Formats: sequence, structure tokens, C-alpha cells
Amino acid sequence: MTKRVKILLDESEMPRQWYNLAADLPKPPPPPLGPDGNPLSPEQLSAVFPMNLIEQEMTTQRWVDIPQEVLEMLVRWRPSPLHRAVHLEKALGTPARIYYKNESVSPAGSHKPNTAVAQAYYNKEFGVKKMTTETGAGQWGSALAFACSLVGLEAKVYMVRISFDQKPFRKMMMQTWGATCVASPSMETQAGRAVLEKDPDTPGSLGIAISEAVEEAVADKSGKTKYSLGSVLNHVLLHQTIIGLETKKQLEKANEKKVDVVIGCVGGGSNFAGLSFPFILDKINGADIDIIPVEPASCPTLTRAPYHYDFGDNAGLTPLLAMHTLGHGFIPPPIHAGGLRYHGVAPLISHAVNLGLARPQALHQLECYEAAMLFARTEGIIPAPETSHAIAQTIREAKKAKEEGKEKVIVFNLSGHGLMDLVGYDNYIHGRLHDYALSEEELKKYTEDLKQFPTPHIG
Amino acid sequence: MTKRVKILLDESEMPRQWYNLAADLPKPPPPPLGPDGNPLSPEQLSAVFPMNLIEQEMTTQRWVDIPQEVLEMLVRWRPSPLHRAVHLEKALGTPARIYYKNESVSPAGSHKPNTAVAQAYYNKEFGVKKMTTETGAGQWGSALAFACSLVGLEAKVYMVRISFDQKPFRKMMMQTWGATCVASPSMETQAGRAVLEKDPDTPGSLGIAISEAVEEAVADKSGKTKYSLGSVLNHVLLHQTIIGLETKKQLEKANEKKVDVVIGCVGGGSNFAGLSFPFILDKINGADIDIIPVEPASCPTLTRAPYHYDFGDNAGLTPLLAMHTLGHGFIPPPIHAGGLRYHGVAPLISHAVNLGLARPQALHQLECYEAAMLFARTEGIIPAPETSHAIAQTIREAKKAKEEGKEKVIVFNLSGHGLMDLVGYDNYIHGRLHDYALSEEELKKYTEDLKQFPTPHIG
Repeated sequence: MTKRVKILLDESEMPRQWYNLAADLPKPPPPPLGPDGNPLSPEQLSAVFPMNLIEQEMTTQRWVDIPQEVLEMLVRWRPSPLHRAVHLEKALGTPARIYYKNESVSPAGSHKPNTAVAQAYYNKEFGVKKMTTETGAGQWGSALAFACSLVGLEAKVYMVRISFDQKPFRKMMMQTWGATCVASPSMETQAGRAVLEKDPDTPGSLGIAISEAVEEAVADKSGKTKYSLGSVLNHVLLHQTIIGLETKKQLEKANEKKVDVVIGCVGGGSNFAGLSFPFILDKINGADIDIIPVEPASCPTLTRAPYHYDFGDNAGLTPLLAMHTLGHGFIPPPIHAGGLRYHGVAPLISHAVNLGLARPQALHQLECYEAAMLFARTEGIIPAPETSHAIAQTIREAKKAKEEGKEKVIVFNLSGHGLMDLVGYDNYIHGRLHDYALSEEELKKYTEDLKQFPTPHIG
Repeated sequence: MTKRVKILLDESEMPRQWYNLAADLPKPPPPPLGPDGNPLSPEQLSAVFPMNLIEQEMTTQRWVDIPQEVLEMLVRWRPSPLHRAVHLEKALGTPARIYYKNESVSPAGSHKPNTAVAQAYYNKEFGVKKMTTETGAGQWGSALAFACSLVGLEAKVYMVRISFDQKPFRKMMMQTWGATCVASPSMETQAGRAVLEKDPDTPGSLGIAISEAVEEAVADKSGKTKYSLGSVLNHVLLHQTIIGLETKKQLEKANEKKVDVVIGCVGGGSNFAGLSFPFILDKINGADIDIIPVEPASCPTLTRAPYHYDFGDNAGLTPLLAMHTLGHGFIPPPIHAGGLRYHGVAPLISHAVNLGLARPQALHQLECYEAAMLFARTEGIIPAPETSHAIAQTIREAKKAKEEGKEKVIVFNLSGHGLMDLVGYDNYIHGRLHDYALSEEELKKYTEDLKQFPTPHIG
């Protein structure tokens, strides 16, 4: 081969531990608060999560062993390939070397199974029989359905209604893996019924779907039903760090001594965290790396929303989390990157941004689709609409490198493929999409409510 | 790891040559015939294919070098993984060791890009500007769109109308890669208009779509437009042998000394040939291997159709091919495995079956979907409906091994994933599918026409 376009790791080189950024942050992030306004105790979470995952959520241990059983599930599709995007580089005429970590190779088509199999394993270990969750675009719901199928757990997924209606294929995926999938808000929960009463035609939101899934878990007093979240929380981000840990080994194999830019798209934050946290460690230790979380301009949590305590869900069933948030009542505008439409963003990422360890950017969807089309036609992989945000930023950085005449190394996370999201591409190709940015008035309206909660201190 | 569930090859271990079964068959297959009834000359194909591919079509050279440029495209997703199906084995309680070659990891989701990139390369080399083709379920059309995008050729795909209407996502994939996709029969060709005149509501067929694509290529007298076929022909099968060649290396790595059963689903025959031809060579050399092509009972070419000369397309624009055929006027019943609904089957495979080198089986779709569901819930990958035929036969063989108490090694080709075909799963889960076998009357009706053509001699 003249140019090495794909860097693989052998099974034996797969990381055996996850990396916990909480161990290395110069200041600890503000703790989650219980309903009493005091820092949350592990017991207060036990109605929702199994204790083994709660311990993981709260640990500040730097390295956490990946259980053998989880490794054996991960190895079905991991280590994932790292590609050198030589064809995109050529199309851009950039001196930058662009690499992307290909998380689309999992059976569910995204990075989500990395944590889904871990969570399913820990729940099974704890004696849980059924897991409930929410899903937006459907990536997370199908990943959990997949994982529950592998370990033998029942799965129930509340899917945001607008996605449920627009993306029937995702529902079919979940059913094929044996999960039950209902549109949210549903009549099955108090939280769902309350929303439907006020607004029977609501498109739903991740916040509402989370409320429903949490309610169903808490309602099972036998403790055999637990809730599962696909992003935001520390343990979820922890499970995703295998992405960045593999990437570092692969860059070493590619003889790259220095990484200049690390990019990931951000909704709740798990794929961004998965790739970037091991690089943030390097940055804490003095490396000069530009670490860029990219969000849609229509849901600008990191770039425009206040840093505040807020609920993770719509109905206020979760603890209060310190994060950049548009307010838990936020109803996102209908852009196609459904996985990026969450009102908040992971506390660990919010904190890292506040400490100057990451530099968030917000992009419009037309630029992202244009970038995705160029990527599909040069690199050959059709990316998920969420992922297109990372690609668009990569292209910006590659063009900047060209202007500066610098041989930068840029790495981004190809968090998923877009084969289930082709309607978005069709709309883009036929000129049916528009850009949309959150207005100052809307931002003010949604965040008004936050005043009732305490303001966190940035360390 | 306790059990090795995935066997990878390094880029450096990727085969550098394709294997040509035509070199080793004990008797040569009957040659294709021109309109004059005489064996076809290379020149007679030159209006349709570039000469470099015609040479490859006719060669009896055993090993054919893979051009460096093609290797560089293949390596984007190859070598593909070989998985040990330990979870399926466990569910079946079989002593058999089941392996599957995972061709679903390509950007188009199937084995089809293996030949698409090779064909696009040779056409580009020959100075061609535009490639035309047909597609049934859409796997081939999207693979060629992908390949043309990589090498920089225009692509035009005639898609069987019933699939065009039922599978809009496939069309969107092709558009995203820059190809033009029209429903067939169309008003753009004489062949299409003739069919529509007789039957405006026809669901279309692969045979009709081939006629249209060939007509468009031939009509461009500049020679800059050529036709491309995704299966059936010798050079297409040749390009797919990289599947079996990799598989043999991987089985060696897994310390398997002997393979007992090799299975692939068959429409035109390319994925089956790709996996099995290198094993058929072993069988010719004395190895005891059961090689099983599996077709749908609704389109039983190898198990029930006569061996005869017939056109490859509906309008009679192609040479006469010696193959098992249901007659070029065959309109297939609407089962979901669209990729298996071709009236004929590759001449090389037909010949191998006649020589006793492969043992075809026909299966009903309900058994295939049941098998696919078990596979999805144990191994985690949702297979294409076509692939489900190979899985169902694998399960039959694994159960037989259990009854016999034999530790057999079974290998099948996971030719593609089913993420674009979830409607079939939904129909199966909700009891909307039925079994359907071709009746004796229908078989007689469709094959009546064949009498006008010569009968080939089996060597």
C-alpha cells in the first residue's frame, strides 16, 4: 500500500481499563444535588440505578477495570478502525493530516453500544430484569435494545414522538432485538399524561422521555426495573473513553507524535467525551491541543446557555445537575440531528469547558450537511447528521491549516453512520432544509425558570 | 479473552490476487453465444463493457492480479472480519463451530462494493465517463454509486419499480453518493416504454432493468457510457473471491484444519461464489466439503429450473448464457429478499452445480426470517433478508451436526446487514408474511419460451 488509510488494533491491544477524567481535573466539578438541596448520596439514586453503577458514577479513581464479560461483548466490533482521511484532505488541498475514529462499525451503527453493553452487564449483575430508557433520534434506544438482547434483559424504550413518527426504522431495529418501543409522551406514565393533557400534539422532547423512563423504573418497587441513560452522566462518559484510548494507540502506530486538534459533536456529550477525555488529560499535563466540542446553533448549550443547576429531565424526577443548560422546559426546534437536541450537556464536559480545557463551537445545519456530502463522496461513508457537525468543524480547521500553511494533525470522532437518517440528506439535496439559530428571546424564556435553582460555583 | 470471537487480518495480509475458478473446473463451462448462435467474440461485447473487463470475463488464468488502485479502495473496509458465532452455537446447543464472514462492514453495507470498485476502476482506466446499471433491492446500485463516487465517474441506476417505491432510502443513498436513480421500467428507454405500454402497473423486474441499462450504454455511440453488472458474470464473481481467500487465511489463524460446510445465499450468485470458489478448488482437489448455495423457494433457479441457454435480461439485449433459468420473462413474486429474485444464476455456478461441486437448497422465507431473528438476538447483527437464507441453512446444518454428535466446522457468508430492509422484519414480527413456492404450472409457463434457444451440453 502506498498510503496507510486505516489503522487497526489487534484484540489483544484493546484497552482493559476506562479512563476517568474526574480524577485529574484541576478542580472537582460541583456535585449533583438531591431534592433537599444537599449533595446527593448514593442511596438517593438507588431507586433509579443499580448500586454498582452508582459507585462508578461517583468514583474519582483514575482507571476503572473493564469486566471480562464486557470486554467479550465489546470485542465483537472493537477495536474500531482509525482512518486517515486522505481523500478528504486531497479534496480540501490541506496540509493537515485528518484522522477519524470509525464508531459506525458497531451493529447498531454508532458509539452508543460501548456504554450500552457495560450498563446492561452491570444491571444484570445486580439482579435487574428490565431496563427502561429514552431515545431521541433512536441511536441510544437501539443500542440499549442490542445490549439487552445480548445479556438477556427486557428493554423498554420511550422514543421522542417526532422521531418515532419520522423514523419508523429505528423502532423496527429495537423490535428486531426484542425491545418494546413506545412514542413519548405516552399514556403509560403520569409524566407523559400530564404533558399530553396540556398539549396533545406535542412533538415530545428528550427531557419528557427521560421523565417517563425514570418514572417507570421508580414505580417498580421490587427493584427489578432500573433506568439507563445514554449520555450526560459520569459513568456513561467513562465507558466511552475506550474510543480515545484506542485512538491514542492507533495514532502512535501511525507515527503521529503530536495531535493538534480533537473534535467531536455534542448533544449530551458522550461521543465527544469518549474521544476527547484521554486527550484532555494530555492538555492538563501541558500538551498544546485544541479540543473542540461542536453543537448545533439551534441548541447551543455550551456556547450560549448559562452554567446552572437544573434537572436532567422535564418533570423534575432527576437530581439537580451543574451544567450548561437551556432549561429543562426547552422544546428543541426540528433539525435533523435529533441526537444533539438535549437541553443540557454532561456536567463533566460543562466543567471542562468552564476550566478552559475545551473550546465549544456552534454550527448551522446547512454547513454540516454540505460537509457530510463532501465526506460521503470522498471518504465513502455516509455520516449520521450528528456526526456531520464534527466533520464541518474538521473542514474549518483543515482550511485554517491550509491558510496558515501548517501540517496540523486533526482527529475527529465519526460517531455513527447515517444509513437510518437518509431523509435528512434527501431534504438537504432537494433544498428543503433551512438554518435556524435560537433567538435571544427564546433563550431568555427557557432559562427564566433556572432562577429557582442554586448557581454552581466553578470550583 | 476466553474465546476468540473475531479473527482479523492485517492490511498486509490482504490477498493481492483474485482466484478464477474457470481455470480449475474439470470441464469448461459452455460458452456464451452471440445473436448468430456462435460462441461470443470479445468484440461483440465491446459496446457494453470496456475491453479490459471483457478480457477478464474470458480469461482462464488461475490468478489475476488486483491493481494497486483497487487494493487502495478495498483496504478502506477490508480485510473484513471473520466472526465465530459462539452465541448462536450456544443457543442451538450444537457441537458445530460456526464462522461467518462479515461483509456488512463496507460503507454500502454488503459485499457488492468488492466488485463495484474494481469495475469502476477498469472503466475509468478505459476512458469511460458514465456507468449504467440496474438494481433490485438496491444493494448493487448503492455499491456502484459509492464506487463511482470514489473514482469520479457518473452513475445511472435503473431500480426495479417495486423496490424503488418500497425502499426510498436506497435511492437516497445513491443520490448522496451523487448517482442518478430512476424507477424501472422507465420512459427513458425503448425497452422500458415497451413494457409500460403493455403493463403500466408492472412492478418491474431485474431482467427489465438490465435491458434498460444495457440499452442506454449501447445507445451512446461515443463509447463513453458502459454498462455494469453486479453479479452473474465471470469477472464479477472473480472480484468477489477475495472474500473466500481472506476467509481461508482467517480459518488458518483460528487453527481450523478442516472445513465441513460452506454456505452462501444465491440470487445471481456473486456473494456465494466469492466465499465458495476458493473452497470449491479444495473440493476439486479431493477435500470433503459440502458447498451449499441457498435460494428462495419462490425463485428456485438452481433446485428446479432447467439448465438452458437464455438471455440475461428481459428484452434480449444480452448474449445467451448457459445457466439454470426460470426464463427471461419471469416476473418474481414479491418476497422481501429482493436481491435473490433474478430469473437466472451465474453460468459458473450453474456449471459447478451440474458437475456435483455444490449442493443447492431452496428455503421458504418464514424459516429464513426466524433464523435471522435468532441471529440478531444472539450475534447482535441484523442481517439482510438475502443473507437470512444462508443463516437458515447454517442453522439446519448445525442442528444436523447436533443430531449426529459431530464437531463440524460451518462457514457462511454474512453478505450484508439489514438496516435498510427493516420493513421486512416488521412484517415478519407482525405476522404479515407468508410462504410462497413457485408452482409447477408457473415454472412450466415461464420456461416454455426457452425452447427457441439451444440446449447447452454439460461439458
